[in-house]
Amino acid sequence: MLGLLDAKKRGRPDIAHVTLLEILSTPLNKEGRLRSYIHTINDYVIHVDERTRLPRNYDRFVGLVEQLFLDRRVPPEGEPLLSLKKMSVKELVETVRPTMTVAFSSVGTPTTIQQVCRDLAKERHPAVIIGGFAHGHFSETTSQVADMVVSIYDKPLDAWVVASRIVYEYEVESAK
Amino acid sequence: MLGLLDAKKRGRPDIAHVTLLEILSTPLNKEGRLRSYIHTINDYVIHVDERTRLPRNYDRFVGLVEQLFLDRRVPPEGEPLLSLKKMSVKELVETVRPTMTVAFSSVGTPTTIQQVCRDLAKERHPAVIIGGFAHGHFSETTSQVADMVVSIYDKPLDAWVVASRIVYEYEVESAK
Repeated sequence: MLGLLDAKKRGRPDIAHVTLLEILSTPLNKEGRLRSYIHTINDYVIHVDERTRLPRNYDRFVGLVEQLFLDRRVPPEGEPLLSLKKMSVKELVETVRPTMTVAFSSVGTPTTIQQVCRDLAKERHPAVIIGGFAHGHFSETTSQVADMVVSIYDKPLDAWVVASRIVYEYEVESAK
Repeated sequence: MLGLLDAKKRGRPDIAHVTLLEILSTPLNKEGRLRSYIHTINDYVIHVDERTRLPRNYDRFVGLVEQLFLDRRVPPEGEPLLSLKKMSVKELVETVRPTMTVAFSSVGTPTTIQQVCRDLAKERHPAVIIGGFAHGHFSETTSQVADMVVSIYDKPLDAWVVASRIVYEYEVESAK
């Protein structure tokens, strides 16, 4: 599965930090079955290698991201763990070519996480997009690259809660 | 449900921070159905009120915990969001009197998260204990207060991954 955190509205690296800590530690990621991307302000996309051991300290995470914006990759030599490209959400989706893309938003079509993950697990190469902003919703462009925009709870949820639930339920459904 | 993070071996407030961010944001907690405690080094227990809006910045969280150890409560006036008591895990369990207590450990009896949460959801007042240490397992005393010690994955998992899965699956099972 491919996971994209759209964090482009106003820098909120704390949301990306907690969400990445959550998903990189999951069995799905440890088994090499998850690819993680973050879309940032000004249309940059960070690819986070699944072997990345993210600093748990927030300030060190921010330092790492600053280094990434300078060098375009971290570490500067050898296999990159984090890499940065100038790219919109649309361009990323066109590059990775998912067979199905689902965006999660509290204003989407109401459904359950089980139902969505059942559908995702049937796909050869599914992708999910989660909003990583403090307020507001996806842009029109982001909604348009998704095959569907769904809501799993009637109130906004933090990105990391949504991410952890998708990964868990996808593990359960894809093991069936 | 009552959740206890046993973080008593070597101070690792980063584990408590991410785990609390994860569980305080869940529907279960927002609906007032989760009580969260942290057991720290030297047998202190922190009760985290469900309305607590935890700082997302790690250093500010550490500052808050330092203030808590000085004043025994945060904020110092009015309804406390965090409160501290000198108490062992055994004493806490004797005080809150759960009808069933399950501890999660990679060396426990193998099971699935669905099965455990199905059992927990049948209880009037269930409790779970999660290890919040970087290495090692529960002490003998902690294992003894639990009715069972279970393992949901054949390798160690970070505390926040375990916590988010328990809360999610408990929500699903208790809604049935």
